Amino acid sequence: MEPERPHVLTFNEIKQAAERIEDGIIHTPLCEAKISKYMDYNIYLKCDNLQYTGSCSERGIRNAFVALNDEMSERGVIVPSNGNMALGAAYQGHLLNIPVTAVLPERCPPSLSQRCAELGAHVVLVGETVEDAVCYANKTNRDGSQIILTSDDPLVMAGLGTVGVEIITQLPETDAVIVPVASGGLLAATLVACKKLKCTCLVYGAECAKVPKMMKALQSGYPVSVPVIPNIAQGLSSAVVGENAFATIKGRLDRMLVVDEAYIARAVINVLERERLVADGAGVCALAAVMQGLVPELRGKRAVCVISGGNIDSGRLSRTIHRGLGVSGRLMRFAVPVPDHCKGLEVLAEAIADKRAVIKSFGTEQIWVHSDIGSTWANVVVETANEENALALKEHLRNLYPTVKFAVFDVDEKHKMR
Amino acid sequence: MEPERPHVLTFNEIKQAAERIEDGIIHTPLCEAKISKYMDYNIYLKCDNLQYTGSCSERGIRNAFVALNDEMSERGVIVPSNGNMALGAAYQGHLLNIPVTAVLPERCPPSLSQRCAELGAHVVLVGETVEDAVCYANKTNRDGSQIILTSDDPLVMAGLGTVGVEIITQLPETDAVIVPVASGGLLAATLVACKKLKCTCLVYGAECAKVPKMMKALQSGYPVSVPVIPNIAQGLSSAVVGENAFATIKGRLDRMLVVDEAYIARAVINVLERERLVADGAGVCALAAVMQGLVPELRGKRAVCVISGGNIDSGRLSRTIHRGLGVSGRLMRFAVPVPDHCKGLEVLAEAIADKRAVIKSFGTEQIWVHSDIGSTWANVVVETANEENALALKEHLRNLYPTVKFAVFDVDEKHKMR
Repeated sequence: MEPERPHVLTFNEIKQAAERIEDGIIHTPLCEAKISKYMDYNIYLKCDNLQYTGSCSERGIRNAFVALNDEMSERGVIVPSNGNMALGAAYQGHLLNIPVTAVLPERCPPSLSQRCAELGAHVVLVGETVEDAVCYANKTNRDGSQIILTSDDPLVMAGLGTVGVEIITQLPETDAVIVPVASGGLLAATLVACKKLKCTCLVYGAECAKVPKMMKALQSGYPVSVPVIPNIAQGLSSAVVGENAFATIKGRLDRMLVVDEAYIARAVINVLERERLVADGAGVCALAAVMQGLVPELRGKRAVCVISGGNIDSGRLSRTIHRGLGVSGRLMRFAVPVPDHCKGLEVLAEAIADKRAVIKSFGTEQIWVHSDIGSTWANVVVETANEENALALKEHLRNLYPTVKFAVFDVDEKHKMR
Repeated sequence: MEPERPHVLTFNEIKQAAERIEDGIIHTPLCEAKISKYMDYNIYLKCDNLQYTGSCSERGIRNAFVALNDEMSERGVIVPSNGNMALGAAYQGHLLNIPVTAVLPERCPPSLSQRCAELGAHVVLVGETVEDAVCYANKTNRDGSQIILTSDDPLVMAGLGTVGVEIITQLPETDAVIVPVASGGLLAATLVACKKLKCTCLVYGAECAKVPKMMKALQSGYPVSVPVIPNIAQGLSSAVVGENAFATIKGRLDRMLVVDEAYIARAVINVLERERLVADGAGVCALAAVMQGLVPELRGKRAVCVISGGNIDSGRLSRTIHRGLGVSGRLMRFAVPVPDHCKGLEVLAEAIADKRAVIKSFGTEQIWVHSDIGSTWANVVVETANEENALALKEHLRNLYPTVKFAVFDVDEKHKMR
């Protein structure tokens, strides 16, 4: 499916897709974000994490599947993916009776491959990245007898565009839409849909600063590969944006936002705690950009953040929570030398209790430390109510233990957020 | 507010409440549970975890607040609570300009008291349980100048009953409604509403087996205190059911379900992973009862599980996830003696990799163990794809290391679930 000249997506293709997939996908809710009450923005969330397999990919997959002729349907499709496309394909394949081979990276969580298999897909684990999965798919399909579906496929993009159609239908007053960027298909399609239905609507993309492939492509004028560094927004970790997506976006995108990982972790927690919704790091990237203060020009405006996915396995969710609590100053890790006399531990415990912090873990080390032989180092993790509380405790500890060491997820005034 | 003769709630009170609170609460969605596709039940979820402060309590609080006269509104109210009532009161007090004193147990998570304070409530931390908080409230309010609101207050119960009204309106075909039981107010009110609007609708209560106060009350014929043992469904941990709630329920409840903690942990994970919703242990108790197989008579019927709350602080959520993964066989902890020769670790690592399990943590202990001096014990936590996978790994480890020890959250065939 690698086109000689890239395909620029049109609104007509999206309109056709909307009719074609109508019966097989969920019209997800667009709801006012509860965080709006704490910010100067009117944020709305387009909750595509509530699709059956937890992401908007299902829309694109269904559009491509329904368009297959009988012969191709029987032969089945190959879907190289790092998660969402594979799950969506497994489920839609199950509904439409199309054999699906999901090609996933070796490192994908066991529960993901398990769920694809449960839904009837043939699962192949290979390599490190989506790009490796695509290579594998091309190699095993040399005769071209099967369709290989990626998110840069024009039919897949057209299906994804229905997110944009639904947004403008659900909230015609939308001033701006912010879209997470994996390989760019969702952004390209949403842009085409929103600009067509409401020409004044701003459309922004958001990606993680660790893998800024869209920003690099925009700067270079063509898709360029960037190193894929593991990060919280795993679902956005494509090394390069799609040719078709880029051709569609070029010259028409209002802004591209590059978001710090720390804000992505915060946004995951915020969505969990305030909205009571599960979204993955990729899925909250748009909201994270707002939280990081990257869009001051949208103050007072109605901005829709697309929550593109909620496929985070529980183990990873739990780790993300800890990171998020760490960067929000609600978990704090430090090491202090506790003198080996009877009051040593008591003084430390009292200092922590004084600031109403709660001990989460406590360990000691006597041998592998650089301190006098009369001290035991205590490694402590505590939970605090908020950043103010954490800063007060920090101050207090510094006074008591001048050599106290705080862990990397340190509370930093410049990271402070309302 | 302790009545001489208990107050039996009527449908009229609920109808009045519905009109009174209309503007100030969210009509929460009733959605088909995605888990239905894996079970023989048609499960629907009434998502009251999506209320602004994450629980149905807000409905009851708002009804009581709106009914206050000007003088009482000015004096403010005292709300003893272990979380949801306090949050709901803080928020509704903020909206209606009513001073709120939230009395919370000392042990409540720092983020909870923090959020109540953020919303403008005066927060007092006291004692261990809600009952301690009630005692404190009565003591400080000896002159009776302020209203003390508990979930057994008739106005609060009437407000909670709007959950039942919405359920029958949203899904008139409802065959049964299952309701989590804290002090019983929500169950009593839902029962009155559902039975009135659809006389054939079954109404069940669900509570955690560790604090079975409603079951004990039903067996005794009157409310009796049970010990409050810490458990995953913290929000249901009242020592005793309310007098008014019990008088309303007595003789009219179709069934009371007592749910194992392990199934509550599983239900929290299921709701997170499949529905992409955050619900607390108390909130998922009804769904957990279905998952435990306690309601075979509802097979093929339309059963609505009330998701009563989603107020789980992230730290606790993360711990609940680990418990849930443990009981589902997706996390497994074991200890094996690794001989001190160069191949010792390699053999163990190979055994784990063979079954595609992923190492989550690894530690060793040489001193505090009962084994020969030539072995180091390795404490290992691994993630597996599912129970089958976990059982295969267990078998494999038993063959290699006859003295292997597995941790308490062991995979147990009788806990197996589809």
